[in-house]
Amino acid sequence: MSQLQNDRYLRALQCLPVDYTPIWMMRQAGRYLPEYRQLRAKAGNFMTMCQNPELACEATLQPLQRFDLDAAIIFSDILTIPDAMGLGLYFEAGEGPKFSRSITQLSDIEKLPIPDPNQSLKYVTDAISLTKKSLNGKVPLIGFSGSPWTLATYMIEGGSSKSFSKIKKMLYCEPKALHLLLEKLAHSIALYLNAQIEAGAQSVMIFDSWGGVLSHQAYQTFSLDYMQLILSQLKRGKKSEDITSYVPVTLFTKGGGLWLDTIIRSGCDAVGVDWTVNLSQIANKGQIALQGNLDPTVLYANKPTIEANVESLLSEFGYNNGHVFNLGHGILPDIPVEHVQYLVDAVHRQSKRFHYD
Amino acid sequence: MSQLQNDRYLRALQCLPVDYTPIWMMRQAGRYLPEYRQLRAKAGNFMTMCQNPELACEATLQPLQRFDLDAAIIFSDILTIPDAMGLGLYFEAGEGPKFSRSITQLSDIEKLPIPDPNQSLKYVTDAISLTKKSLNGKVPLIGFSGSPWTLATYMIEGGSSKSFSKIKKMLYCEPKALHLLLEKLAHSIALYLNAQIEAGAQSVMIFDSWGGVLSHQAYQTFSLDYMQLILSQLKRGKKSEDITSYVPVTLFTKGGGLWLDTIIRSGCDAVGVDWTVNLSQIANKGQIALQGNLDPTVLYANKPTIEANVESLLSEFGYNNGHVFNLGHGILPDIPVEHVQYLVDAVHRQSKRFHYD
Repeated sequence: MSQLQNDRYLRALQCLPVDYTPIWMMRQAGRYLPEYRQLRAKAGNFMTMCQNPELACEATLQPLQRFDLDAAIIFSDILTIPDAMGLGLYFEAGEGPKFSRSITQLSDIEKLPIPDPNQSLKYVTDAISLTKKSLNGKVPLIGFSGSPWTLATYMIEGGSSKSFSKIKKMLYCEPKALHLLLEKLAHSIALYLNAQIEAGAQSVMIFDSWGGVLSHQAYQTFSLDYMQLILSQLKRGKKSEDITSYVPVTLFTKGGGLWLDTIIRSGCDAVGVDWTVNLSQIANKGQIALQGNLDPTVLYANKPTIEANVESLLSEFGYNNGHVFNLGHGILPDIPVEHVQYLVDAVHRQSKRFHYD
Repeated sequence: MSQLQNDRYLRALQCLPVDYTPIWMMRQAGRYLPEYRQLRAKAGNFMTMCQNPELACEATLQPLQRFDLDAAIIFSDILTIPDAMGLGLYFEAGEGPKFSRSITQLSDIEKLPIPDPNQSLKYVTDAISLTKKSLNGKVPLIGFSGSPWTLATYMIEGGSSKSFSKIKKMLYCEPKALHLLLEKLAHSIALYLNAQIEAGAQSVMIFDSWGGVLSHQAYQTFSLDYMQLILSQLKRGKKSEDITSYVPVTLFTKGGGLWLDTIIRSGCDAVGVDWTVNLSQIANKGQIALQGNLDPTVLYANKPTIEANVESLLSEFGYNNGHVFNLGHGILPDIPVEHVQYLVDAVHRQSKRFHYD
């Protein structure tokens, strides 16, 4: 295995000093890149790209060829697990993900299998192994999954939702059924992320895209508790002189800004934060790494505006060792490529003054 | 004018003692009521109902005939102002509101008129006068508008949105154009709410449904500042022995839980809060009234669960004089009517022990 040449991302996740702030972007392999659109057109559809390790590897590496990013994230989807459970994930043009079968009652949940990641999800671990080899130590590779609550929303709603009526009905009317589903998902996700780590993922992230729709009590019981169950099962290794001997875990609850105090105490290594949060107001800073939190729509703006927003964000938190610069959500498909280039360079250039050499 | 028989809602908004906690529900005149669905079928469509004072009055009063609610809210829509500006508001079955003309550039904004509320919005003030008379002092009548930022999102996006790309592009690329629009809207809303007060509204509420999608800096500059501009222009009257001599104003930013400290200091009388917030953790309680914050999907649950959620919410904040019980968002169309009945009665029954007689 070749040595890691850029360890800034892993060092920042361990709150160790860096010479400048590392940056990667959620959905950095995506439709805003013309070469991505070409690859996707060739593949035919999104799931074919995810399920073919060569295509997934190529998509993962595309943004690294253009921009001086400090991490790669495996090209995949948050919903691979429910698909592997047999729900039939598919995508329709212009719409969100859908399932051909959804979960409506306890008996559906009881029948759900715990997917063996070395069988039905082998395409993901294969893509990770291949990408790790291709990266050749350039930057660390991130693995990921959706959170139990987030996967459950899609499985019960049958796709995206606005009011989350079906899953919330289950939450308030049949909490035991929902708890069984979340427990099965947490167990499946722990196996899956451990397999990703074994295949070469150097850090893993749990995307809780819909935790923010819960009430403050329900968030703890129906989302965070199950992410903690995963955390307790992950084979993170041990911290040592060799930065890669430890696999840091990032939790990201979109819309979870009000609950950062409890998320920070969950046992994760880093917390993803969206743009509603002023990073300088987070109480526990220094104890944990923070990832974020530029509004992705800032990338529509001209370069002076991008520059000013980078400066403002770095002034809030950039002096801290535990900062990974990122957007507060995935990059949008109509963002100009040259603005992304500008952002990455501005973060590196501006952040130097906040760090020791 | 007949004397007000139930002043609990107005007293709570002024943080005065009450014998039990008042309750009303956002969208309480709505599709969950069979008599509402009948009325709407008769009217043909939603806008006809809004624009016909007799129908709007009837819809407003329907929930009061069933439930022991402590306030009525005029049946109308948050988007009446952009419609009066000439954008052509319409609703398509199963979809959100749409505009036949949307705003794309500065010259569109410069051409927008400030609607005279006594002309193009007279149907609203007529509905308020008629409803006030029909209420005959039973409970106070609430008037409302969307916030400048929220109206601007619909005007620029042309309807509902997921990523708010168009308006955020304007925010970051052409902030001056957006500020001009927000200023025009703030001025229009102030005139409109003052006309509603003159017609008989005893309290007014500003719905900032989409303030929560902004970054923490942008929220202040592009939403809260313009709500404050409205507040400074409203004819609220003076507090006196006669509780109705003062018209309290409630601001509600959905998803604004992180910014409650600044919202509380904005000069409003009450702040609406969604269910992501733990009311007991709000620092400035006692200085201002709070309205909320039950998750509307709790109403799917059985009566013991509703009972337990009412108890939990009242334990957080119900001992405080300045509490108006409400949902954290509008009531959903498939909620059983008997659960609403149960909620209203449970709030009245349980809250008595938190208050002096």
